[in-house]
Amino acid sequence: MTPKIAQYLAVQAPATPCLVVDVDRVEERYRELHAALPLARIYYAVKANPAMPVLERLTSLGSSFDAASWEEIELCLQAGARASDISFGNTIKKVSSIVRAHAAGVPMFAFDSAEELDKLARHAPGSRVYCRILVENAGAEWPLSRKFGTTVEHAHALMLQARELGLDPFGLSFHVGSQQTTTDAYEAAIGRVGMLFTDLVQAGLDIRMVNLGGGFPTRYREDVPEIDEFAFAITRALTAAFGNALPELLVEPGRYIVGDAGVVSSEVVLVSRRGDSSQANGGKRWVYLDIGRFGGLAETEGESIRYQMRTPHDGGRTGPVAIAGPTCDGADILYERSDYRLPLDLASGERVELLSTGAYVSTYCSTRFNGFAPLAEHYI
Amino acid sequence: MTPKIAQYLAVQAPATPCLVVDVDRVEERYRELHAALPLARIYYAVKANPAMPVLERLTSLGSSFDAASWEEIELCLQAGARASDISFGNTIKKVSSIVRAHAAGVPMFAFDSAEELDKLARHAPGSRVYCRILVENAGAEWPLSRKFGTTVEHAHALMLQARELGLDPFGLSFHVGSQQTTTDAYEAAIGRVGMLFTDLVQAGLDIRMVNLGGGFPTRYREDVPEIDEFAFAITRALTAAFGNALPELLVEPGRYIVGDAGVVSSEVVLVSRRGDSSQANGGKRWVYLDIGRFGGLAETEGESIRYQMRTPHDGGRTGPVAIAGPTCDGADILYERSDYRLPLDLASGERVELLSTGAYVSTYCSTRFNGFAPLAEHYI
Repeated sequence: MTPKIAQYLAVQAPATPCLVVDVDRVEERYRELHAALPLARIYYAVKANPAMPVLERLTSLGSSFDAASWEEIELCLQAGARASDISFGNTIKKVSSIVRAHAAGVPMFAFDSAEELDKLARHAPGSRVYCRILVENAGAEWPLSRKFGTTVEHAHALMLQARELGLDPFGLSFHVGSQQTTTDAYEAAIGRVGMLFTDLVQAGLDIRMVNLGGGFPTRYREDVPEIDEFAFAITRALTAAFGNALPELLVEPGRYIVGDAGVVSSEVVLVSRRGDSSQANGGKRWVYLDIGRFGGLAETEGESIRYQMRTPHDGGRTGPVAIAGPTCDGADILYERSDYRLPLDLASGERVELLSTGAYVSTYCSTRFNGFAPLAEHYI
Repeated sequence: MTPKIAQYLAVQAPATPCLVVDVDRVEERYRELHAALPLARIYYAVKANPAMPVLERLTSLGSSFDAASWEEIELCLQAGARASDISFGNTIKKVSSIVRAHAAGVPMFAFDSAEELDKLARHAPGSRVYCRILVENAGAEWPLSRKFGTTVEHAHALMLQARELGLDPFGLSFHVGSQQTTTDAYEAAIGRVGMLFTDLVQAGLDIRMVNLGGGFPTRYREDVPEIDEFAFAITRALTAAFGNALPELLVEPGRYIVGDAGVVSSEVVLVSRRGDSSQANGGKRWVYLDIGRFGGLAETEGESIRYQMRTPHDGGRTGPVAIAGPTCDGADILYERSDYRLPLDLASGERVELLSTGAYVSTYCSTRFNGFAPLAEHYI
């Protein structure tokens, strides 16, 4: 928690649940990443947090933007970004969205299938396109499954086809999974993409770009490698793959930029011991907060992302707890198996802060599940 | 799909994604349940779909309401319901919500812990309270976990304590899990609750009510027992437990009332074969719709609720598919392992209807994940 957020919470005591984001911290993280990877152009992944103060600050710093939808492109333009600095990074795009993006001047589109390539050739003729490769996501705490990306062999054929279709076969991309905690994943992926890149150059294609994706982690409950370690591993792998003839490089950080700039402030609704301690509920206390999986903390699904928490009793004696949200939904449990402990003195009505919640919280929030209003947001 | 919805979709062709609900069908289902279980008072579980046309129609039919939050209570009052017909059924309530509900005249509150009972005694003195028992959820496709309910032994002590605290220890409740597909679960639960009820009567408590919860299923892809089968099993179990001296009975249906009254209309954004068929993606086609897990179809988590789909090519040749949503989130997959098949002719730009989606869709929807607007809703 930054001192500015701590002071805001202490002085303003905003109604809970709410998200407070320190926009100066967003800037710091942007600068840190830029310093660590000076050769890579930063395309901020808007989906991580599309709030206008975040987009405006990043625009003022010269950031580019990775958009998942036409609606996100519109937000970037509203924030003052140039269309030429926006990449339409979703491999799944409605024709109407492609048409609008192309008309607005967005120059670059992702794809991973022949069908999407056909849509782009028809509705965004001549555009820069890049093909997403499926790579290993081991080490990622929010992996990306088989929904995106294709094989190296298929990508080879698609890139040649892109040229046939009159598109500009600009580059290749991959994504090692979100909250990636090992540097190995980047090295392995760069090795694979590097070979394909070289093959395509030899096939006479004017390919010029490698998009390294995002995935850089935020520190939650456990330590993660520093950004310098990722930068070192990435640079070494790029050098091995490309020597001095480096392609244009893009990165698409989202969580890394905004994750630790935000804090969710919540209220304890109930602390209960049910059953006869050792029975129905394993003797655990259950702590119910006024925010849960459907109020924005969607990434606690499967207890994947494990947020660190602050309470008014930190330093006092603690005991094991299960932590759940306020809805009547049995799936609205944050942590039951992840060995969370909270102070024994914690009582209903007190505040609990969830740290590093600036990314992937405000937008996952449901419109009104169980009647609860969407998460309030404060950008300071 | 009701004829009214089919005609609305054909004539109006509303922009996708959207939810269309036939409010007459809501009324039919209410009447069917009332006919099947005439002794039970129906408390509609507002969380299943809190749209004003649904609440108004049910109010006009004499329904009572089960609310999960103060905000849901307000919606019921706006729809014309009397406060005396509302139960505050969430066992996790903010003090401020208890105070408001009590002031508004809501007479009945759920609890499952000593801590919640203390809050109720202080902030809703004299109210009717009922204790939720933890029962088996086997057979439920959306089970309720260990988040709610307590043991029979603990409930016994809590009910006596409620009297000591000046509350009215009105009754007992249980919940067999949502989309419960077996009648056995109700019979077993009624047996357990019946014994506890008798014990409490013998202990001199003026206990008068059993709340059978909800859980009655909607037909999705697979057949489920008819409501008459549930009613028969429940009545038999009640007779075994209580003889002719039946307590007041409540049911809290949500999905049963609104589930099959609604249809989600979506657009195919992309149909792709990636990799070299047998490789990265197992040779499957992937069909991407413009609605996914974060656009309202949250109950497809773990492929729990398996919706039936209609396409323009039904009756034609089909092949296996994975089905996913439109966002850049790897978790936004509806079905990958549930053996879905869709017509081979299905193409991007065409419409796919998801049947029986009237419950637990509109409210789970995220505010704007990946920039996508919340699901549009049409009540006809």
